[in-house]
Amino acid sequence: MPPRSGCSGRAGRRRISGIVVRVVEMKTQTRKRVGILGATGLVGQRVIHMLRDHPQFEVTALAASDRSEGRTFVDACNWKLPFDMPEAVKGMILGPCAPPLDCDLVIASLPSDKAVESEAAFAAAGYPVISNSSAYRMHPDVPLVVPEINPDHLDLIPVQKRLRGYDRGYMVTNPNCTTIALVLALAPLDRAFGLEAVMVTSMQAVTGAGYPGVASIDIIDNVMPYIGGEEEKVETEPQKILGRLTGEVIEDAPFKVSAQCNRVPVQDGHLESVRVKLRRAASPEEVVDALQSFRGLPQELRLYSAPERPVVVRFEKDRPQPRLDRDAENGMATVVGRIARDTVLDYKLTLIGHNTIRGAAGAALLNAELLLARNLI
Amino acid sequence: MPPRSGCSGRAGRRRISGIVVRVVEMKTQTRKRVGILGATGLVGQRVIHMLRDHPQFEVTALAASDRSEGRTFVDACNWKLPFDMPEAVKGMILGPCAPPLDCDLVIASLPSDKAVESEAAFAAAGYPVISNSSAYRMHPDVPLVVPEINPDHLDLIPVQKRLRGYDRGYMVTNPNCTTIALVLALAPLDRAFGLEAVMVTSMQAVTGAGYPGVASIDIIDNVMPYIGGEEEKVETEPQKILGRLTGEVIEDAPFKVSAQCNRVPVQDGHLESVRVKLRRAASPEEVVDALQSFRGLPQELRLYSAPERPVVVRFEKDRPQPRLDRDAENGMATVVGRIARDTVLDYKLTLIGHNTIRGAAGAALLNAELLLARNLI
Amino acid sequence: MPPRSGCSGRAGRRRISGIVVRVVEMKTQTRKRVGILGATGLVGQRVIHMLRDHPQFEVTALAASDRSEGRTFVDACNWKLPFDMPEAVKGMILGPCAPPLDCDLVIASLPSDKAVESEAAFAAAGYPVISNSSAYRMHPDVPLVVPEINPDHLDLIPVQKRLRGYDRGYMVTNPNCTTIALVLALAPLDRAFGLEAVMVTSMQAVTGAGYPGVASIDIIDNVMPYIGGEEEKVETEPQKILGRLTGEVIEDAPFKVSAQCNRVPVQDGHLESVRVKLRRAASPEEVVDALQSFRGLPQELRLYSAPERPVVVRFEKDRPQPRLDRDAENGMATVVGRIARDTVLDYKLTLIGHNTIRGAAGAALLNAELLLARNLI
Amino acid sequence: MPPRSGCSGRAGRRRISGIVVRVVEMKTQTRKRVGILGATGLVGQRVIHMLRDHPQFEVTALAASDRSEGRTFVDACNWKLPFDMPEAVKGMILGPCAPPLDCDLVIASLPSDKAVESEAAFAAAGYPVISNSSAYRMHPDVPLVVPEINPDHLDLIPVQKRLRGYDRGYMVTNPNCTTIALVLALAPLDRAFGLEAVMVTSMQAVTGAGYPGVASIDIIDNVMPYIGGEEEKVETEPQKILGRLTGEVIEDAPFKVSAQCNRVPVQDGHLESVRVKLRRAASPEEVVDALQSFRGLPQELRLYSAPERPVVVRFEKDRPQPRLDRDAENGMATVVGRIARDTVLDYKLTLIGHNTIRGAAGAALLNAELLLARNLI
Repeated sequence: MPPRSGCSGRAGRRRISGIVVRVVEMKTQTRKRVGILGATGLVGQRVIHMLRDHPQFEVTALAASDRSEGRTFVDACNWKLPFDMPEAVKGMILGPCAPPLDCDLVIASLPSDKAVESEAAFAAAGYPVISNSSAYRMHPDVPLVVPEINPDHLDLIPVQKRLRGYDRGYMVTNPNCTTIALVLALAPLDRAFGLEAVMVTSMQAVTGAGYPGVASIDIIDNVMPYIGGEEEKVETEPQKILGRLTGEVIEDAPFKVSAQCNRVPVQDGHLESVRVKLRRAASPEEVVDALQSFRGLPQELRLYSAPERPVVVRFEKDRPQPRLDRDAENGMATVVGRIARDTVLDYKLTLIGHNTIRGAAGAALLNAELLLARNLI
Repeated sequence: MPPRSGCSGRAGRRRISGIVVRVVEMKTQTRKRVGILGATGLVGQRVIHMLRDHPQFEVTALAASDRSEGRTFVDACNWKLPFDMPEAVKGMILGPCAPPLDCDLVIASLPSDKAVESEAAFAAAGYPVISNSSAYRMHPDVPLVVPEINPDHLDLIPVQKRLRGYDRGYMVTNPNCTTIALVLALAPLDRAFGLEAVMVTSMQAVTGAGYPGVASIDIIDNVMPYIGGEEEKVETEPQKILGRLTGEVIEDAPFKVSAQCNRVPVQDGHLESVRVKLRRAASPEEVVDALQSFRGLPQELRLYSAPERPVVVRFEKDRPQPRLDRDAENGMATVVGRIARDTVLDYKLTLIGHNTIRGAAGAALLNAELLLARNLI
Repeated sequence: MPPRSGCSGRAGRRRISGIVVRVVEMKTQTRKRVGILGATGLVGQRVIHMLRDHPQFEVTALAASDRSEGRTFVDACNWKLPFDMPEAVKGMILGPCAPPLDCDLVIASLPSDKAVESEAAFAAAGYPVISNSSAYRMHPDVPLVVPEINPDHLDLIPVQKRLRGYDRGYMVTNPNCTTIALVLALAPLDRAFGLEAVMVTSMQAVTGAGYPGVASIDIIDNVMPYIGGEEEKVETEPQKILGRLTGEVIEDAPFKVSAQCNRVPVQDGHLESVRVKLRRAASPEEVVDALQSFRGLPQELRLYSAPERPVVVRFEKDRPQPRLDRDAENGMATVVGRIARDTVLDYKLTLIGHNTIRGAAGAALLNAELLLARNLI
Repeated sequence: MPPRSGCSGRAGRRRISGIVVRVVEMKTQTRKRVGILGATGLVGQRVIHMLRDHPQFEVTALAASDRSEGRTFVDACNWKLPFDMPEAVKGMILGPCAPPLDCDLVIASLPSDKAVESEAAFAAAGYPVISNSSAYRMHPDVPLVVPEINPDHLDLIPVQKRLRGYDRGYMVTNPNCTTIALVLALAPLDRAFGLEAVMVTSMQAVTGAGYPGVASIDIIDNVMPYIGGEEEKVETEPQKILGRLTGEVIEDAPFKVSAQCNRVPVQDGHLESVRVKLRRAASPEEVVDALQSFRGLPQELRLYSAPERPVVVRFEKDRPQPRLDRDAENGMATVVGRIARDTVLDYKLTLIGHNTIRGAAGAALLNAELLLARNLI
């Protein structure tokens, strides 16, 4: 299959009356071949959708649970995105979540219990594994990477290879969906003022639980004040992400996080009410400025999926809202609003991130793009 | 109209096969006559419903905005409760929200801007005014009363009468609906361990905004991270309620409250994620015990609308939930769950209270019952 | 366990200030002992709740799927009703859905595939089986009974016993939840004017699908235009219910039903947009009168769970609504509104019934009460 | 302001790694200048968004109610779309809904009572008026146009001009949002088989009621079985649209429509359960083929906003759904599914259309494009 570009696909779909549009493409590289583990899940579907016209990657292999194995994707997948399933994947036969797969790298979106074995097997078999699961996130030799924040943690890869006896393969993880929306806002504050404590109360979308996930009886006219394992993740992942890699060890950032996680009747977008205690005094203008001016390596490298602004600040009194703000920057930004001094800690603010885009599929993809840019794939 | 009892009405509605039930009633007092200001609003409707078979009060006058004045209640009121409108009020003619009204006391559920003038006018005209509005809550001479917590604050009434030149009338207020659910849980903690700081993130029901209130476009598949004036109320009212009346002055309780208030797609019941910092160390068992054993004057006096347990503690990992817990103790309790040590402050917990029952109509009613028990009506 | 009455339980929960209430009970019969199959499901929970203080029945045995067998009810059941689980059932050990069970009759709320074997086994073992499932509804020798409409169909029981070789046991079924709300309105129209055709478009609540049932991703900000098997049931059950029992055979009523079934984001209450073609001309007043005046044997016998009015007619332009009308007559009535002449057929109307009360648990219970009244238990 | 193209705007927003994209534009016409009446409403916002990079039209004037007049758009408009407000309109000053306005044509999305006077005034003042309101839809001399179906009805324009004494101005209307989704599916059936009767039960989104529109209390966990005036529109508009223009008169198509309209908790997309009675027999394959092959003048002329397929047929058992199908063909198609023989009429099917795109803003825009293509602007 010859490489295509995202742009030609788009332009081709529009009829432009009375205007001539010519798209000239120059292929500069061969696309890397991606295998998707957990392809039939909500995050797997998002990955497939985001890769439908990606200039650097193409989907060449799909894998899912035993039940789906051997069926075509179109037959096995209960497609839940409001876009048509890409033609290219419809006829692909689902393989098992075990090596070998016909691909250069693997993007894995598996339940944690399945991920433990599957991801390690792929890494051992020589595949770069980019994982959405929590299975290895907190292992000391596994990078937990948000490209705007800690791309240098990828230097753990050689350590990991040596410790685990991997040859060409390795594992890189991205954080929990609630964590990632949060740390994008925490990172600039930590750099500018130092963080001492963080309190977050989340109102999370139902897509965060996968499919079928939350029973509708539990969420219509209701809020579920409990999400299994979520608070523990949000209370520990940020310190690793914002930690410093010294030699072969990541030293956790020295702040505490308190999390209370709730599920609300929203399709997409995790909203978070946040308070922070800073180490140095900061004016509201300085806080806003730190957030708005935040840029990282993906922006510098102009990675394909990178948001122009990783953190978008809104000043309306009633923003951000899930419905209006989850898709900002194609769903790859954290949108922050309602920044104000807090009566107990220093500042309070409200933020939102798209849980299946920036919180999962897009996070993995941006990591893949970063790894490619650093010649690690 | 002869006094009726709540029980006879109930028993009368059920057919009991093969069992003889005889209800013997003994009238022991004449019922006080209540005028309801803001009768057509959601809270006014709740008050009317809760008084439909009250042994001590009966509705004798209804008042509403200019637009409704002069119409019958059944004609003017867009009844929104899932119970039939009581027959007794259907034909009542709505009066203006100004004295005189044919009643012994007034229960007012008016928008704050209307309440300023109307409530003072009724008090000046000799009526006890029990108010749900924020108009006078924070005035130093106006009691802001939760009967389980600070019934002694009613001792401000003579002060208020003197300062404002009232003869027989006076104003007593109840807190904001988010505050009241919160303080019922804070009070036992403050008494037992002393409070130093409170952080609350609310997920509030749409009925809290009255009718028509929140536009459905703003709340379906969405959360609104802003409720006008709400955070300010929640950050200041608890300290007055838990304050100490010394001489003629209430000294605010010495703790800080931080509030972030959100609106979620829920009909009834404000859910709150709370953290507290205590002045004295407490074990989880002590915290649970303080909450569970909490009782106040309404329980001691066995007031008609008083919940048996003002604070109900649940131990399931996913409780309290709005749908399952808002009606606990007939909607008059705060239900607390998910009590755990917090990483930043001392404890975290989740609580819920029914915003239009305990948070408004029931709060006013319980105050009325308390005032009656103390011979202030 | 000594028999209790519903009323004493209620009265005991209320404190009545200043009024003396004495409840004098006279036991007139021993309560029948009920076993509940599918006790942990949503309908099973409703049955348990509705039997909590029933004067004629008491729960003595609970059974559920293999997974739950041997556990206590409180431990195995994910209780989803907004009332506390009755104390009496908490400690009961769940048995298998196979005889024997310690009870006089069985109320079964099993998935259809499980019901086929289980219900027949209980009937063969001598138990009267009252079933919510579709397994045997359309069998010619099994009564499909709505007590207000076709109590005479119980005369099939001896036929069934003979044909199936049952001794004391037998099976009686109630209709699908959408059907039952519908036929309560169809019956009076059929009797008064004759039905020629019925078209119904349903908007069904999520509790109709059991637990976990519909995934929240499929229903938030969405409608599902498909419910497996539902349209077929609604298109065939009414004709049997309204059919005539002649000798040993039910002759279907001679009208056609067209059904389009949709799932909407509502907890309880199936709303139905209905048009009917009548055999005889009828004025709107006659239609209203036929519906309002409808009464049946349960009303005549004053059965414990019978609604006073099986059909409630409302005249407001925007009723019935699920939230406001599903609980009419304790959830045991069909509420009809928006009655108007139709441009294509003769009349159109909108109706609602509570799907887990009148549509399932209450339907079974009313059948049990009818069977008891007819000395069939 | 120089003309821009939609494509350059799009391409400019994407960073394409490793690929060179050059967009060459050739301006072939000057864009027509559009004034928007009701600019701050939900439909007005959609029109503005859809015109943000339109090759043939540009927004040059905005008008709204008295309250907003004289304010900038960014200041007066409560923007409710999940896209950023176009920069070009932010600073525009809102004018009154009365001529003159600085534009070549007017797209009006006003409440019907305002539209009566305002639209006629603009037409009389020489402006082509393209209207979403119901004010003039059913006037015999006013075309009610769906470009795929009855573009020839534009021949009423000279009649209208003569009768009303207009010089250059005139009024063209598009149907109610529920009607338009419906008639796109009815037209091919009527052409192929003849329609005799249509029954539609709608489940409509809340955006159909404008802002603030439906109160959230009325729609959370609820369905509203009534939408003022809606059934009357749906029962009469289709016959005019599918009618034949003979001389100066439109003869209504000879079929009856029965409508029952409900509001459901959905943001966008009106779902409709439909049955039809045909004049000639048709197999299911013929029905599907008639729907799928339907094309009209907009497709032939390749109008900018025209969907490639005005009717999309889906074959999955649970489609169409609002969440998944409302945006098909950029929200400009009717998506039909669940086509099956009906037991009472001939066929039943379920369809959906995006109510504020194809049902309003996009309908007006497509009419504008048609008028331009026919040199009527």
